[in-house]
Amino acid sequence: MKSKGTAHRPLSTVRRRIVALAGGVGGAKLAHGLAQILPPEDLTIIVNTGDDFEHYGLYICPDLDTVCYTLAGLANPETGWGRVDESWNVIENAARLGGPGWFRLGDRDLGTHLERTRRLREGHCLSEITRDFCKAWGIEHTVLPMTDDCVRTIVETGEGDLEFQEYFVHRHCEPRVKGFRFDGIETAEPAIGAREAIAEAEAVVICPSNPWVSVDPILRIFSPLLSGEGSGVRVVAVSPIIGGETVKGPAAKMYRELGIEPSALAVANHYSGLLTGFVLDRVDALSVKDIEVKSLVTDTLMKSAEDRRRLAQDVLNLIGDL
Amino acid sequence: MKSKGTAHRPLSTVRRRIVALAGGVGGAKLAHGLAQILPPEDLTIIVNTGDDFEHYGLYICPDLDTVCYTLAGLANPETGWGRVDESWNVIENAARLGGPGWFRLGDRDLGTHLERTRRLREGHCLSEITRDFCKAWGIEHTVLPMTDDCVRTIVETGEGDLEFQEYFVHRHCEPRVKGFRFDGIETAEPAIGAREAIAEAEAVVICPSNPWVSVDPILRIFSPLLSGEGSGVRVVAVSPIIGGETVKGPAAKMYRELGIEPSALAVANHYSGLLTGFVLDRVDALSVKDIEVKSLVTDTLMKSAEDRRRLAQDVLNLIGDL
Repeated sequence: MKSKGTAHRPLSTVRRRIVALAGGVGGAKLAHGLAQILPPEDLTIIVNTGDDFEHYGLYICPDLDTVCYTLAGLANPETGWGRVDESWNVIENAARLGGPGWFRLGDRDLGTHLERTRRLREGHCLSEITRDFCKAWGIEHTVLPMTDDCVRTIVETGEGDLEFQEYFVHRHCEPRVKGFRFDGIETAEPAIGAREAIAEAEAVVICPSNPWVSVDPILRIFSPLLSGEGSGVRVVAVSPIIGGETVKGPAAKMYRELGIEPSALAVANHYSGLLTGFVLDRVDALSVKDIEVKSLVTDTLMKSAEDRRRLAQDVLNLIGDL
Repeated sequence: MKSKGTAHRPLSTVRRRIVALAGGVGGAKLAHGLAQILPPEDLTIIVNTGDDFEHYGLYICPDLDTVCYTLAGLANPETGWGRVDESWNVIENAARLGGPGWFRLGDRDLGTHLERTRRLREGHCLSEITRDFCKAWGIEHTVLPMTDDCVRTIVETGEGDLEFQEYFVHRHCEPRVKGFRFDGIETAEPAIGAREAIAEAEAVVICPSNPWVSVDPILRIFSPLLSGEGSGVRVVAVSPIIGGETVKGPAAKMYRELGIEPSALAVANHYSGLLTGFVLDRVDALSVKDIEVKSLVTDTLMKSAEDRRRLAQDVLNLIGDL
């Protein structure tokens, strides 16, 4: 269903205002692909902040930083998170003194957390700080936290409730998942500019991030703006599940533990009622017949910057065809 | 007046329990010299915390860290402060994002501040944290902050009151000094163990640190224990002024701006009423006749670890002769 014919039409004639919803590594990669194609004024990336946390008194935004580092070309290409050419002198020395070493804070990365924390304490809000950081890093597209309010993803497990980073990093996603909770989500307001970006968008792209813990917190805040009568915005999701597994992270494990067979179809069902289009991998092509919205089958694995750009172009082509 | 004959007498026969009062680099060097000679149970180093401050939300103890790094062999031998083999990735990246870069926080050094701040927030006190850090760094002698309470050295200048690090690092000691204030000193209690160490000490050594801003805060807390009737403790100071100048830091400039000719004699007068012995450099030998307490003229410049040991031995010999 890939519309090859449109891949090379001049971009200037098909202006697409896009809002991308992104979590960590997978989301950052597709956001980077979109940023390679769309001019800065046409792309806003709204990023999950549910897995933000405080560590050593510092305010850390793992997904926001992953997206920004990726867009700025500062990300570690091997891990997908953290900084390229990173050093680890701070955390190694803190751990030598008895401090917790389970969350690997790189030195360059720590510069971000130190300055962000300093500015938050000065009274600046996260979206304002993110805007200024993007400017300093040469990122021209708009990156927004989903909210300036405090939302905390809690993973409900067989071993009790765990804060997300405790579950994800410290416990290596081992505890069996029973559910998720987003503390603070009921009163969280969209970050400054996010409401307007969605109102002006032709389409919203749900990046291939973890539906349960990366995308759901964002949707809890924004779905009223997406599914409301007359919103007119198209919503396209890219499956993070390929052949029943995730490229990275615990999404497939979470699906299984919640009694759902992890699959592209399960992802489409997860977002049902919201979607107008869906993108899944060739290995899952047989699922297309069961997916209710217009779907595009393509290569969704993003190993290179060119893969990101190509997948982003596929997504934009699908949006054009909706 | 140097008692050369005693330099080689076996140390085991002359047990000296010593408390050293130290500020930053000069104090750390003599403390290191004393630590090379005295067994761990015989040396307690009480360190100024008046120039502690919070920066980027981190609790930083410049003098305490300089003393500990020096004793542990971790200090930068060129600067005297900070860590050897240091990297600067955190502060450079924070400054690139618009953060203050005037206080050069090294990466390894930041590990100390992060873990100290984390533990203070957990409710531990500074002397307890310092004890544990010393253990981790392999420091066997006892290092104590002067107090676990908050004392802040304020430099009163022609440009208004400045916090010490603002004056010292940010303003490069340029503003003209009019006086000093130690906020919180009235209610500051000696750190846990400090009172006992002084009660058991044969002598207190005032290291060659800045009398105005490094030693005075400590003396404001401890002088009642030193000069009280029947305290019996001998107090020996080593002049930080050599030939009218300091090796490092603004002490001489401060003397001048306060209308006092900087000299070893001025230092002895600064501590008058408290001293039982004084150590000054050969270049100031002519001053001896004006100094009221027993004085020892020697080489006080500490360029090498051996210089530190030799000066420490001279100080111990003087104490033996008092």
